[in-house]
Amino acid sequence: MTTPAPVTPQDLGEALAALRDGAPLVQCLTNIVVAGWTANVLLAVGAAPAMVDNPHEAGEFAAIAEGLLVNLGTPYDDTAAAMSLALTGAARARTPWVLDPVAVGALEWRTSLAHQLCDESRPTIIRGNASEILALTGGSGGRGVESLDSPEAAAQGAMALADRHQSVVAVSGPTDHITDGSRMVRISNGHPWLTRVTGGGCALGALMAAFAAVVPDAVVAASAATATLTVPADSAAARSAGPGSFSVALLDELALIQPADLAERVRLS
Amino acid sequence: MTTPAPVTPQDLGEALAALRDGAPLVQCLTNIVVAGWTANVLLAVGAAPAMVDNPHEAGEFAAIAEGLLVNLGTPYDDTAAAMSLALTGAARARTPWVLDPVAVGALEWRTSLAHQLCDESRPTIIRGNASEILALTGGSGGRGVESLDSPEAAAQGAMALADRHQSVVAVSGPTDHITDGSRMVRISNGHPWLTRVTGGGCALGALMAAFAAVVPDAVVAASAATATLTVPADSAAARSAGPGSFSVALLDELALIQPADLAERVRLS
Amino acid sequence: MTTPAPVTPQDLGEALAALRDGAPLVQCLTNIVVAGWTANVLLAVGAAPAMVDNPHEAGEFAAIAEGLLVNLGTPYDDTAAAMSLALTGAARARTPWVLDPVAVGALEWRTSLAHQLCDESRPTIIRGNASEILALTGGSGGRGVESLDSPEAAAQGAMALADRHQSVVAVSGPTDHITDGSRMVRISNGHPWLTRVTGGGCALGALMAAFAAVVPDAVVAASAATATLTVPADSAAARSAGPGSFSVALLDELALIQPADLAERVRLS
Repeated sequence: MTTPAPVTPQDLGEALAALRDGAPLVQCLTNIVVAGWTANVLLAVGAAPAMVDNPHEAGEFAAIAEGLLVNLGTPYDDTAAAMSLALTGAARARTPWVLDPVAVGALEWRTSLAHQLCDESRPTIIRGNASEILALTGGSGGRGVESLDSPEAAAQGAMALADRHQSVVAVSGPTDHITDGSRMVRISNGHPWLTRVTGGGCALGALMAAFAAVVPDAVVAASAATATLTVPADSAAARSAGPGSFSVALLDELALIQPADLAERVRLS
Repeated sequence: MTTPAPVTPQDLGEALAALRDGAPLVQCLTNIVVAGWTANVLLAVGAAPAMVDNPHEAGEFAAIAEGLLVNLGTPYDDTAAAMSLALTGAARARTPWVLDPVAVGALEWRTSLAHQLCDESRPTIIRGNASEILALTGGSGGRGVESLDSPEAAAQGAMALADRHQSVVAVSGPTDHITDGSRMVRISNGHPWLTRVTGGGCALGALMAAFAAVVPDAVVAASAATATLTVPADSAAARSAGPGSFSVALLDELALIQPADLAERVRLS
Repeated sequence: MTTPAPVTPQDLGEALAALRDGAPLVQCLTNIVVAGWTANVLLAVGAAPAMVDNPHEAGEFAAIAEGLLVNLGTPYDDTAAAMSLALTGAARARTPWVLDPVAVGALEWRTSLAHQLCDESRPTIIRGNASEILALTGGSGGRGVESLDSPEAAAQGAMALADRHQSVVAVSGPTDHITDGSRMVRISNGHPWLTRVTGGGCALGALMAAFAAVVPDAVVAASAATATLTVPADSAAARSAGPGSFSVALLDELALIQPADLAERVRLS
């Protein structure tokens, strides 16, 4: 077994080029708060979103989709059942899937649901803030969707979680950490306004599902998604007066960012 | 039986003036992705949206509403039941209704649902992309919400579908086609960014329900809605840097567009 | 029993400072149309939204949350059950809660639901337009989410409703009225574009829940929320071309407004 190659800025630029070429169809089972925003982020970057989240169709569609996002922001009995069925469809068709365990640790039902989904089918990528990732490893919980734990503290938990599930784990924060249990990628782009707009993290999970559809190495996919959201966030913040104009500018910049720019401007370590 | 008059640019300007005067109350049973956007489009143009989509109230409200939209973007058992009840209320009160068969053809459950709804009550207007319209006529399906078939190819299917249901059928694309089975209106305004923002088509369906509330000829209503979305899209694109600023500018232009401008700038054939 | 002090502009400025310091966690059971917009308004102003609205978790979370919003815009059986459970959790933890009775009076099911929720637990604040407030007092109904009754006419009903429930009642309109049955605060900021963007009133209800979390006097909380939405709306309108750019600018101004500005610019009587 060879050691996987370290992730380079060029890998991230090539991943973005692959996403633009492939325009992957990404099924999103996400929450009522960010569904529209998530679709707009995916469309801006060049992917094709489809929010098919009812139990009658979620499994059928997961076999057509090229990437799948399961986000636990506002689960209901109906959509939770659809999540489980989508995983079955995705497993059969080998569709990569991303788990975004929103507020897991703070709330019991969704914490059980997250564990159940991980047991049913290995997630390709698990993406959360520090509290959510620590909660999945058995650590302390957060306060709703906010994180009370530092991403650095969560980096250790992330490696353990990656090992346990054989998944890539991504922890969001001022510096984002992405690991498969052996490699650890750190990306330090982005702007505090990303936390003043709802759905920054949720959109990142959706982008990871889009990149996982076109890039076989899930560490590269998760890293490319992180760079593709946070490098444009730097540009968007520079031309914005507040969180409203920032979120509009971010969609513009997501459409404008070029692979070579991404590789040049990402702060990777 | 006389041949209906051809649709003129002046008809579309007059329809917009009637919408501004009437401020019709439009009930929308639509999807979780675009509900907010759809409401904002209707408000910007001068209509009054109301998203009443639960089974307890949808039928009652359809008798109060002046236009009804049924959009199949994210149906659930609950809202699918509400759709059927809304049609009953609308039929009793003779409220015009628009069917937007999102992703029909690609997914089985909603395809049955679309056929069932059409059987329960004749839609005033059916609006979709080429794949969705062909699927309703028994043709090939699409890939989620995207269309794989050309609008020109769908124009033939649209005429057959219009004949079968005695409905007006509108097929969206670079050129929009609107037909009642005898007349065929083509409108060629709009901008590719309309496909980079989620809910362009969904908002168009909602606008058709608003215009059907104030204009008796449903070909004129569907054409006026198409022009009212796509002519402002031309202006919005001209002052935008990307899809984010485009969607913001589009709402502004929808509020600013005047009937005479609409008649002058629509590319109708 | 002493007469409560009248509300001053300084009280409202101090309330905003308290909100910024406290960053209260606000649980929102709201509708699918405005969930994202509401979260963005709360984030912009400095609060922490969490849309936990399923029956499994709503009660548990209401004991963690510092303020609770129950908005009847798009209720379903599932979320209506969650509302009732959230009130039980909120009552146990003494979490203040705000009722936004959207379209009550126009529709039977939600009218019963609103009365039931008020009977289960005294609302800290009830916020609606004139028609909704009059409907709760037994008056005439509205037309969907629009108000057909004048806020002045509703002011009398508001005082009666405030007395009946021992709640603060806020009536939105060109002039907003806020009363606890003895005091009556009038605020005359804001812009007609607030009615051309969906969720102006819904966001106001959410802001009231945020202010009620940090300010013990609910008349001050409701007044501070009203000023915090409408004073920035004045600035946002001044730099906007239409309702699209207005809603973006409003989020910016909500983040920028300072307590001293608020106190200086509010038109209070």
